[in-house]
Amino acid sequence: MEMVIMRDHITISEVGPRDGLQNCKGVMPTDLKKRWITALYEAGIREIEVGSFVPPKLFPQLADTAEMVAHAKTLSGLRVLALVPNLRGAQGAIAAGVDAMGFPLSVSETHSRKNLRQTHDQAVENVRQIAGLIAEQPEHSRPSFEGALSTAFGCSIEGVIKEKAVLRLAERLVEAGVDELGLSDTVGYANPVQVKRLIRRTRDVAGADRVKSVHLHNTYGQGLANAFAAWEEGIETFDSSLGGLGGCPASPGASGNIVTEDMVQMFHAMGVETGVDMDKLIATRAFLEEGLPGEAIYGFTPNAGLPKHMVA
Amino acid sequence: MEMVIMRDHITISEVGPRDGLQNCKGVMPTDLKKRWITALYEAGIREIEVGSFVPPKLFPQLADTAEMVAHAKTLSGLRVLALVPNLRGAQGAIAAGVDAMGFPLSVSETHSRKNLRQTHDQAVENVRQIAGLIAEQPEHSRPSFEGALSTAFGCSIEGVIKEKAVLRLAERLVEAGVDELGLSDTVGYANPVQVKRLIRRTRDVAGADRVKSVHLHNTYGQGLANAFAAWEEGIETFDSSLGGLGGCPASPGASGNIVTEDMVQMFHAMGVETGVDMDKLIATRAFLEEGLPGEAIYGFTPNAGLPKHMVA
Repeated sequence: MEMVIMRDHITISEVGPRDGLQNCKGVMPTDLKKRWITALYEAGIREIEVGSFVPPKLFPQLADTAEMVAHAKTLSGLRVLALVPNLRGAQGAIAAGVDAMGFPLSVSETHSRKNLRQTHDQAVENVRQIAGLIAEQPEHSRPSFEGALSTAFGCSIEGVIKEKAVLRLAERLVEAGVDELGLSDTVGYANPVQVKRLIRRTRDVAGADRVKSVHLHNTYGQGLANAFAAWEEGIETFDSSLGGLGGCPASPGASGNIVTEDMVQMFHAMGVETGVDMDKLIATRAFLEEGLPGEAIYGFTPNAGLPKHMVA
Repeated sequence: MEMVIMRDHITISEVGPRDGLQNCKGVMPTDLKKRWITALYEAGIREIEVGSFVPPKLFPQLADTAEMVAHAKTLSGLRVLALVPNLRGAQGAIAAGVDAMGFPLSVSETHSRKNLRQTHDQAVENVRQIAGLIAEQPEHSRPSFEGALSTAFGCSIEGVIKEKAVLRLAERLVEAGVDELGLSDTVGYANPVQVKRLIRRTRDVAGADRVKSVHLHNTYGQGLANAFAAWEEGIETFDSSLGGLGGCPASPGASGNIVTEDMVQMFHAMGVETGVDMDKLIATRAFLEEGLPGEAIYGFTPNAGLPKHMVA
């Protein structure tokens, strides 16, 4: 049995500028988005998924992703991520200068076709091409490459996703050249027992060093329970979005991401460092209110205020 | 190190008729409350905290507690609980025929004075008197007696609660004659690491057999994470309230209990049985809508609908 180390410092990967905005009707103005990213950085966030290199006509909310990457790269020590669905997207991401790119491979092939218009074979081939492109880059500017196993815990179209299918695709992604694997609960069906089991099993087939992050949603209110379960398995990086923005356009019924404010609060209460200043983090909600008028913003912690003994 | 058994069947203890109604402005009519309790029973709930033997002028919402006990006792196999703050309340509970009574001893003495108007010494003396009264009852009708350690995880008035204070009061309650101890996160400050540690430490001083239940709130959205952590420590009984009704009148900032619907959903997803039928459970929300017009009712699961693969 492998030794699991529970981290005393974890990384919050803020996905609001990508996963959040992608699922909002409104389009946040570019300048405001830059200021939001800067404010998140100043609140202590050190990893941000700033956008997705997808056709602007499909996702006008993310049309300025290259500009976002360029802006985010001016913030010292910030790890800048973007999603890429194909080689063309990866070329854009490299030209923009990302630190890492993610390819969302959905274990539900129905969802993969709907979301990326790719079969599993096509997606794996795209991953192979992207990995090849990355390998050609000079070492000092070579981005890392993460395969995100979407719908790994269930799919709102296909229903149950077999763990064997997750593991088989994990192997294929590693073989095709990804550096890391992330487990994504795209629609929020995961439960904590399943989270622990799937992390262990994925590490068994892909190596513990390759499975360091989870992307969880809060559709059933189990987001923090799942994050805690993942932390108990030694996971280091936790995706979430400010105000719980987000969902999935190709997944009916998927509701928002874990609320960053609540995740930070849980880890701080547990004595786990995130580097985030809660007051400054909560203040960044103003950018959502300004840039996405009428959009619902969630969060228990902003509503309740900090516990008495945690008020600065 | 003690062996911890994670239960494959847990008990949901529905506290809405007590903790929920106590914190609502409206008063649910007696007849409707009876029908609600019956409906909860028919949905598979087998433990309900039906009220509190407190002065009716202070809590008109609970003035019909004796009648609720009598009604609930007609439902075969239902464990009927009530809170009692003193000997007089215990006499009422015994006369009404409860299966179990709980005494809420707040580890925060400030909260204890505000909530029960009792110092710790007075509260322990009341517990001793109640235990004496219970011991006088004929064995076949003798209710069990639980000491609920309120504010065990923090207090919105005092702030941090020292674990040593919890453990000392746990010892005093056992010495004064309670059968079991419950750990209550009255204001929702608990985090999962703390939940695990405090369960272990309380069992160390009071005996594992005496610590079987937790009462958790969801002020910071960590309710289910805390419930999962408690389940991992072998806890058997989980308090929650339909629609998340509840809070604490003496604890500023305390928001609702864990939503029963969401807790049932988490355990079912984990493969842990509760005996509850989700569709019937959700249908009982109609009693809250009818009896407490305008009262906020929460729940991720009722809003999202069951995951595709769990729809009957």
